[in-house]
Order: sequence, then structure tokens, then C-alpha cells
Amino acid sequence: MPRFKLTIEYDGTPYVGWQIQDNGPSIQGALTEAILAFTGERVAVQGAGRTDAGVHALGQVADVDLAKDWDVDNVRDALNFHLRPQPIAALKAERVVEDFDARFSATKRHYLYRIFNRRADLTLDQNRAWRVPRPLDAAAMHAAAQKLIGKHDFTTFRSTECQAASPVKTLDRLDVTRDGDELRVIASARSFLQHQVRSMVGSLVHVGGGKWREADLVAALQARDRAACGQVAPPHGLYLVRVEY
Amino acid sequence: MPRFKLTIEYDGTPYVGWQIQDNGPSIQGALTEAILAFTGERVAVQGAGRTDAGVHALGQVADVDLAKDWDVDNVRDALNFHLRPQPIAALKAERVVEDFDARFSATKRHYLYRIFNRRADLTLDQNRAWRVPRPLDAAAMHAAAQKLIGKHDFTTFRSTECQAASPVKTLDRLDVTRDGDELRVIASARSFLQHQVRSMVGSLVHVGGGKWREADLVAALQARDRAACGQVAPPHGLYLVRVEY
Repeated sequence: MPRFKLTIEYDGTPYVGWQIQDNGPSIQGALTEAILAFTGERVAVQGAGRTDAGVHALGQVADVDLAKDWDVDNVRDALNFHLRPQPIAALKAERVVEDFDARFSATKRHYLYRIFNRRADLTLDQNRAWRVPRPLDAAAMHAAAQKLIGKHDFTTFRSTECQAASPVKTLDRLDVTRDGDELRVIASARSFLQHQVRSMVGSLVHVGGGKWREADLVAALQARDRAACGQVAPPHGLYLVRVEY
Repeated sequence: MPRFKLTIEYDGTPYVGWQIQDNGPSIQGALTEAILAFTGERVAVQGAGRTDAGVHALGQVADVDLAKDWDVDNVRDALNFHLRPQPIAALKAERVVEDFDARFSATKRHYLYRIFNRRADLTLDQNRAWRVPRPLDAAAMHAAAQKLIGKHDFTTFRSTECQAASPVKTLDRLDVTRDGDELRVIASARSFLQHQVRSMVGSLVHVGGGKWREADLVAALQARDRAACGQVAPPHGLYLVRVEY
């Protein structure tokens, strides 16, 4: 059967997360229903990253097998028609080879975490960024972040419910930049542990606010102990930006 | 009485506009209520720009007179406390001289108009940008926009309900840039007519989509006739970004 690669954007706010669960609407579930309405097929939609409740995507990738070799623009437009008015959209549909696997073929994942460093409540960015009122030193956060680059046991920055076989991952990039009130953290790696980005961001905010020094972040990493994690940043600041293959 | 300058951010989606009206909640009304809850005074809150229903602000400016010479950070935090959970926030409060007038002292106003040029529906930017599916030539839009710069009779780009004394305004800047799928139009002038930015953007989209040539835009301006306006862009792509004094 022809396999399609879908590039998906969504506002994660009203969902229990990417994955189908019993306790509420999911992005995977919404896509499954849209495909059912489009082709009459109930198929498995596999994503590159299982985003948590409230986490957003600008470029989630999913693969799906359909019976017919549809025109790709037709697939994209039909999915968007059936997804309305939900805040989920197919940006692109492509025909891919049969062994393409959205999850296991991925060579790099890029996440963005947005922080507004200000006293005032968020308005247009409610549910789209984390507001941190106390002043943050972005340069100190960036410098400390570089200590996490490379291959490490990331147990400290991993959810206790994480199901990955190993806590060892290679982090390629962790950049912190400031543009006015907004701090942007870019994290890139082949793959991440559950809650890894949010755990690293939460701990970096401790560094930025002066609660931790760089050495405290290094000690937390070396502890290989979930209890050493500073704090876990809330989900609504996190975006799955792009997946490379 | 001490006069305060407030810098205000809001998501215009749930409001009938800046100005107090009978038919629904307004930003001006919400601020009036927040000040009443804070100081017990029912005061006039005058804004620099009367944004329409659905139009957003990143830096609206308002002036207000209060009986007490409050600490400015106290004013900002108290207003934000009483504005919750509405998507309106006071970014800054400042003490200003008695003849400061948010509307009439303004020397320049800057607006942003956001367009997403894509087939897929908007998700995170629903109600925050205008989606235009047909391909737009941003360079052609920018070139044509330069024909509107300067002092002109903007009757073509003015709402028939506009109450300004004269249709003659001086447009200082009208830039169109593209970043991926997103087009951003920046418009700057001392003041604008009602619906002027949205009318100019709507007509520029005719140019970008090939329906109009640059000469058609010039002819529309010279017609000094509201009927010559190409189309009026929807309110939800427009942001009042900054006001200079």
C-alpha cells in the first residue's frame, strides 16, 4: 500500500497529547478520524514524537498507509477539510518509500521552548509560552546549557515514567537567546527522553534566575537522579518544530 | 491629579474593540473596571488608537488620571491582578506630565499586519493572522506599497464611517516582507484613517496575487473613491505595535 508522510501543525492546548488515550481528545485520534472520513479506512497514524498534553507542533511528522495512490495535494486538502474546526492542520503530504518510518527513520528532532520574562500576564501568548516574572540572565543560561551538550546519561532530566530502553542520549544543540522579553531555547538531538527538554529548560531557569550556578547544573546531570532535577517547565511553552530524515 | 501613561497588550478576539460600546465587552471598559476595582475611582481611560473588534495590540497606550501618586509598578501589578483572566495586560505604567495626551500627543503609530500565505488552515495563529491560500508575490506587494508613501488623500482606503476631519494623511512607511509562509506588513504614520491599514493591505493582496498591477493600485489611490478599494483585510491580522511620543 502507498505510504504517505504528513507534516502536521497543531495547538496542543485542547488535547491530552499526541497519543490516543482514554481520558480525552488526542491529535493522533483526530487524524485517525479525519482519514476515516476521507477514505473510509481506519488506519494507524504513527508520529515522530509523542508530544504531551498542551505541547504544540509546528512540524510534527506522521506516516500512514492508504489503499489508493492519492494525489498528495488532495490528501492534504481533504485532511484539512475533515479536521476543521480543530486547531490541527496538515501542512504537507508526500509519497514516501515503504520502509519510511516517521518515528524510527528520524535522524534529528528540533524543539523550541518559549519563555516570556516579564511581570505582566500573557495575552496573545496565553498557553503558548511560559511566563517567568523574575529577571533571567539568558547569557548565563546559554553558557550553562553547553555543559549538557554531548553524550550523557540524562536520568536527571527524564520522567520517571519514561519508557526508553536507555537514559543515554546525545544532545547536539541547546541554545538560549533573548529577543526583548522573550527567551527562546532551541534543543536538537536524534531523539529525546520523556520530559527531557522541559526538565532541562526548568533547570536552566534556575541558572538564569540565580538560584543555581553552572556548577549546580553540572552536578545535577552527574547525579543521574531524577530528584536532582531543578524543576520541569510547563508543557505549553514547548513546540516540536521540525524532524529530519 | 497625577497622570499615568499605560502601555497595554491585548488579544482583541473576544472584544467589540477598544472603545466602550453597548453591544459587548471592550478593552476600554475592562480597563475602566480594573481601575475601579483598584482605586475605587471611575475614570476616563483614553487610548492612542481605537482598534476595531478583533484587532490586537502589542503596545496600545492609554492615559488616566488617578487621585493618588501611586508607585508605577504597583499600578501595573494591580491592574493586571484585576484584569485576570481576560487577555488584556498592562506591560508598563509611567508617571507623565499633566498635558500628556495618549491620543493627541502621539507623533507616530506603528501597525503590523500578519498574513499566512498557505493552503492549510491556521492552528496556533487562528484569529492572529489572515490566511491567503493563493501564492502572493511579496516583492511586488512591497514595490507597489511604496506608491502609497507620502502625503495623499486616502479616501479610497478609508471607511465610509470614518470621522476624521480630513482624508489627507502622510504615510511614512509601508513595508512588506516574507519569512517562509508568513508575510508581514509594517505601516507607520503620525495617524491613520479608520480601516486605512486593512484597506491598504487588502488592495496590496490583489497586487500580490496578480489580480491588480501596480498601476491599478495607483489608480485606486487617485480615484479618491471608497468604491475603488480592492478589499478590506480582516481585523484579526492587525496589531497596534507601538506608539511614539
